[in-house]
Amino acid sequence: MLTPIRWVDDHLELLDQRHLPEKEVWNRYDRHQDVSRAITQMVVRGAPAIGVTAGYAMALAAQNAQVDADEKTVRGNIPGWAQAQMNHLLEAAKELESSRPTAANLMWAVRRQLQVASEHLEAEDPDIAARLMEEAIVIHQEDIDHNRRLGRHGAIILEDGDRVLTYCNAGALATGGYGTALGVVRGAIEAGLNIEVFAPETRPYLQGARLTAWELIQDGIPVTLLVDGAAADLMQRGEVDAVVVGADCIAANGDVANKIGTYALALAAREHRIPFYVAAPTSTVDLTIPNGTAIPIEERDAEEITHFRGQRIAPEMARALNYAFDVTPASLVSAILTERGIIEPPSRRALKDLLTER
Amino acid sequence: MLTPIRWVDDHLELLDQRHLPEKEVWNRYDRHQDVSRAITQMVVRGAPAIGVTAGYAMALAAQNAQVDADEKTVRGNIPGWAQAQMNHLLEAAKELESSRPTAANLMWAVRRQLQVASEHLEAEDPDIAARLMEEAIVIHQEDIDHNRRLGRHGAIILEDGDRVLTYCNAGALATGGYGTALGVVRGAIEAGLNIEVFAPETRPYLQGARLTAWELIQDGIPVTLLVDGAAADLMQRGEVDAVVVGADCIAANGDVANKIGTYALALAAREHRIPFYVAAPTSTVDLTIPNGTAIPIEERDAEEITHFRGQRIAPEMARALNYAFDVTPASLVSAILTERGIIEPPSRRALKDLLTER
Repeated sequence: MLTPIRWVDDHLELLDQRHLPEKEVWNRYDRHQDVSRAITQMVVRGAPAIGVTAGYAMALAAQNAQVDADEKTVRGNIPGWAQAQMNHLLEAAKELESSRPTAANLMWAVRRQLQVASEHLEAEDPDIAARLMEEAIVIHQEDIDHNRRLGRHGAIILEDGDRVLTYCNAGALATGGYGTALGVVRGAIEAGLNIEVFAPETRPYLQGARLTAWELIQDGIPVTLLVDGAAADLMQRGEVDAVVVGADCIAANGDVANKIGTYALALAAREHRIPFYVAAPTSTVDLTIPNGTAIPIEERDAEEITHFRGQRIAPEMARALNYAFDVTPASLVSAILTERGIIEPPSRRALKDLLTER
Repeated sequence: MLTPIRWVDDHLELLDQRHLPEKEVWNRYDRHQDVSRAITQMVVRGAPAIGVTAGYAMALAAQNAQVDADEKTVRGNIPGWAQAQMNHLLEAAKELESSRPTAANLMWAVRRQLQVASEHLEAEDPDIAARLMEEAIVIHQEDIDHNRRLGRHGAIILEDGDRVLTYCNAGALATGGYGTALGVVRGAIEAGLNIEVFAPETRPYLQGARLTAWELIQDGIPVTLLVDGAAADLMQRGEVDAVVVGADCIAANGDVANKIGTYALALAAREHRIPFYVAAPTSTVDLTIPNGTAIPIEERDAEEITHFRGQRIAPEMARALNYAFDVTPASLVSAILTERGIIEPPSRRALKDLLTER
């Protein structure tokens, strides 16, 4: 199973996605600070994958804090030591959460680890690092499991011969493994359907051309690239049966933040009466965010647009606006596919019910 | 005045737009076959600029044919010589017309030169090359003049402080000079308005990032780049007052073929009640094409998407679909701005009246 994240002995390794598809380079990380930088620099990307990575990063933070603690703390002063541990973890959490502010799964995983830490520290469990490491592995396994489960909806929403337009990379590389939008494609194919994928290249980072095409070709799934501007034309030509994308954050009302360019696809899909599906684990839903306008949208460096692989493509002095995500209103989303079921159409009530039921 | 095309003594020179904005390289052309190749390879691009170039290419064809004729033809056999000339020009026309099949101005200019040639050959005028050269210069001058005239509509359709979203490059570089969509911006600014431009980069060829940004920065007009997928988001954010684009071909009913990605912009503009203007000289209108589905859409090499400056960006085996243009239905076009007036809204009747009145 292709996964972009692995825990090896006592450290984290990330498949450096900046080098794909040319080279498969795995980077080693021993400190949460370096992981945070790796997330910002898009060594790993995709909200679920960032969440899984952040789970491990919190384990690294605890591991390093424990080393400090073992060395410095006078035995018999456990409560003070526990407080110092917690402060250290809160600081790590803050740093990690700011590394990609739109990714809901990042906040979710960090808070889950803080909760675990808080419970064990209250119980004066000295081996907090081991607990967070175990939890990180659970988060990772759960993510793969949830993707497989939401992927099964693929056999329900898609039909044999369907041509699916996806966007960016919401595949194995964007998750703990298997993928969300591409998980839906994989699920449909595993159920015996023939599915063909159209992948817009997804500027500026080319996740479609570099990552989606790469992982689909590895799996033998037919994929055709196009420029982002060509997706609406493809729909107008009648060559798309369904749009399936992932999500970086889903607000309480069902508004969806996803890679910049997604909103335009949703408008074109509605125009051509093509269903528009968002595939995401419930960890991508943030009920504390009331709607799309409240989702923090990351703005990235203009150089991602004015330069390509270090080469300038725009003239000197050219300014560029580089929001990494846009918001697709819930009204344009046919259904949200999660590991707990399909929400069709998306609504505040249905999302809340889905997330609070156990 | 910035022009990408110049006639020098007895030959044509084109500003090689593939090297912009890094280098200003002028290529020399003495044969229409080489001009045809230059058009295909996008040394010169933009329907009006291609039309002007084709006018000169026909003059080169006549010039070379005349050399042949002078050498081979027995005097006193003028009709045979004239027929040979015409056959040669018809062959050149065919080659030129296939170099970029969507560009209406290319067909228009070639046919105009054939008409001039036919009249002069019927009159047994031996100096056909001089006549076509004169006509090519007239076509070039007219194009600039028409752009200036349609540009004056800018002061009518735009308001002080407007933020204009354009697409691709419909500027001086895409025409004989001055520009169509950017001519409208220039016209508004010359009338004293403050106008700011947003330019999507326009994949795969990056005409927005490389050409539109370059010529606007040279003129001191504020311009901000964005990725193509970000245009709908920018409209959703309320940061666009008008969309103004050029056209490669306008069908008799007002459907518009323009750079792939234009249709998606038109859908987003309608969603946000932003006027969507098409600026084009009447030479871009082809009344023999009933509607958008009949416009021949050029499909270009997949390598334009899978590679960047010779470097592979997509994995080996990746397929790509590369239509160069899409069709925006007339119903999404607020108005067509031409040198003869504004057609608002576009209609078959209004277009026919505009083109047939004199």
